[in-house]
Amino acid sequence: MKIIHTADWHLGKILNGQSLIEDQRFILDKFIKAMSEEEPDLIIIAGDVYDTSYPNKEAVNLLETTIQELNLNMHIPIIIINGNHDGRSRLNYGSKWFDKTSLYIRTEIEDIYEPVNINGVKIFTLPFATLAELKDYFRDNSIENYEEGISLCLNEISKQLNLNEVNLLVGHLTVQGGVKSDSEREITIGTVEEVQEKNFKQFDRVLLGHLHHPFSIHSNYISYSGSLLQYSFSEATQAKGYKVLQLSDEGIKETFRPIDPLRSLEVIEGSYEDVIQENIKLKNKYNYVQFKLSNLEHVTDPMLHLKSIYPNTLSLINDDLALIAEKTQTKVKLNNRTDSEIISDFFEYATDIKMSEVQRQTVEQMLSQLTGGDANL
Amino acid sequence: MKIIHTADWHLGKILNGQSLIEDQRFILDKFIKAMSEEEPDLIIIAGDVYDTSYPNKEAVNLLETTIQELNLNMHIPIIIINGNHDGRSRLNYGSKWFDKTSLYIRTEIEDIYEPVNINGVKIFTLPFATLAELKDYFRDNSIENYEEGISLCLNEISKQLNLNEVNLLVGHLTVQGGVKSDSEREITIGTVEEVQEKNFKQFDRVLLGHLHHPFSIHSNYISYSGSLLQYSFSEATQAKGYKVLQLSDEGIKETFRPIDPLRSLEVIEGSYEDVIQENIKLKNKYNYVQFKLSNLEHVTDPMLHLKSIYPNTLSLINDDLALIAEKTQTKVKLNNRTDSEIISDFFEYATDIKMSEVQRQTVEQMLSQLTGGDANL
Repeated sequence: MKIIHTADWHLGKILNGQSLIEDQRFILDKFIKAMSEEEPDLIIIAGDVYDTSYPNKEAVNLLETTIQELNLNMHIPIIIINGNHDGRSRLNYGSKWFDKTSLYIRTEIEDIYEPVNINGVKIFTLPFATLAELKDYFRDNSIENYEEGISLCLNEISKQLNLNEVNLLVGHLTVQGGVKSDSEREITIGTVEEVQEKNFKQFDRVLLGHLHHPFSIHSNYISYSGSLLQYSFSEATQAKGYKVLQLSDEGIKETFRPIDPLRSLEVIEGSYEDVIQENIKLKNKYNYVQFKLSNLEHVTDPMLHLKSIYPNTLSLINDDLALIAEKTQTKVKLNNRTDSEIISDFFEYATDIKMSEVQRQTVEQMLSQLTGGDANL
Repeated sequence: MKIIHTADWHLGKILNGQSLIEDQRFILDKFIKAMSEEEPDLIIIAGDVYDTSYPNKEAVNLLETTIQELNLNMHIPIIIINGNHDGRSRLNYGSKWFDKTSLYIRTEIEDIYEPVNINGVKIFTLPFATLAELKDYFRDNSIENYEEGISLCLNEISKQLNLNEVNLLVGHLTVQGGVKSDSEREITIGTVEEVQEKNFKQFDRVLLGHLHHPFSIHSNYISYSGSLLQYSFSEATQAKGYKVLQLSDEGIKETFRPIDPLRSLEVIEGSYEDVIQENIKLKNKYNYVQFKLSNLEHVTDPMLHLKSIYPNTLSLINDDLALIAEKTQTKVKLNNRTDSEIISDFFEYATDIKMSEVQRQTVEQMLSQLTGGDANL
């Protein structure tokens, strides 16, 4: 039996103001072609199909046409769970009809009681839920942290396990020790959200989404597929693709298959002059680039100049400032400064441009409206 | 063969600030019960399922659960077309899967080539499209008006007709002479949008949505089902329900079946005193009411007093003013007055309250921003 494991498509994602829908359409087209060669028995998409709860028309349309091709035309069974980025009701709309063609969309905690059976393999799903939702579902306010909540779900699943069968789990969460990237939004802000590996030992294999690196964790039975594309510059060196699981009497064999994107993400470090004179070469001129440049002080509108040569420049960091910031910024005492000063510094740090007088006045005005005159509530 | 004809559900409708979702849930629950007794071979919903292109979660959920019950649990084939209020992509999401359980969602002009066959009866669908969309579809900019565009669609359908079969048409449009209500939004603002009856004579029956009165038109072969509920006070005296079509060798027999809503709309005319002293009785105290009252001059906050007795008061019209307005307003020459005066008068006419000085100044300010200082551009 052959299973394809993918996750974190983040359809509709906008990176530094740049819509990635064209890149997503390109890569999903390649994914569909790959599937027609793989001829899998099942595709698993482990959450974060969309980037937001309110995806735009293009994103919804891209998911619909992709899944239509895979499920209705190529007749491949598909399991999809929600991630922390997905809106439940958007994702599971129509799911009662989809079940009939073996397209299983699972977004509710109670879905832990409804494993999917494919060729004698049982696939349990653990759709994403927040700590508050887990407390509410189990009517148990004594659940202290995320791991406890997940562990209650896993207990419920354990009761249904037949150890003579192959039991898989699909989830969307962080396993302790997993390598993180900048584009994974924290699941529950301010609480420890990691789940220890040992919680999952009753499964033959745990197929996860959430962490974007395809080799986020070294484990014999837990695996992340990684995201569909590079979604932050911290992922610029990561290959992206899907995983193939071959289940046979000898066990489970896992292979990672990379797919080349339309455009990669690249981080270029150097001096402004070298980059403008094209002494530093990008792997591909049309890649999405983050520049970390030195010697920027006397350049007016460096972004404009960079974009005229590298059209997909998405980010520019003043490397001199970044170095200084690294050394000093963490020690700045915020409570010695006015809100207006903090905003003005942040603006300069993020854009490398000093706030104009008009901008400063607008900020003052907004602060005054928000605080009713007291500038530092 | 038994066909149920309904239309204009307007799920998510908000009337004068009041969400009608509870009323809609109530009436659809009754509709489902009625269907389990009717046991129809087909349900036709002729457009305006939602009230807006971006229906809220409750509205989407109500449609999904209702259609799920009728189609998946009760196994009734259903045809749905879009109306001018529906967003195409929202409505047809998942439709390729829905087709498999005889739930036919038709929202594209090219669907005119895909009639649905139920028990030997051919049902053609004419989903709603604007004049611009019709021009674009037929690549014909010489189409001068809405009727011409529709007539092109009907020609295409005519080519496919087998006159030995029963041919029905489902559409969402205004037939010339149809009785209108206040809640039907004009399809194309500023153009004649009516279609003459004779265009449809090749069909055994034309089942329409758009006009909210169940007996909007007197015709031997064209019929509106009317809306699910009363959606404007101009509909306060209209019964609402669904139509039953019995197709047999003797022809087509049509019956209107009213369903009682949770709350009706009522218009109450009288003097303020009589209403406050409950000398005038509502059919039901919890009905949604529009009061047209006289002797309001010296009453402070009449809405507050009215709502304390009639909790679902949605509208109050000063009948004295209305009378004066009726006699004079139509003759007012707008170009003798400033924008600010027109807005101020409209405000007073609509709310029965004079604009405060602060409100007046805000309007002046906005007008000045919009026109760059010239108050009457």
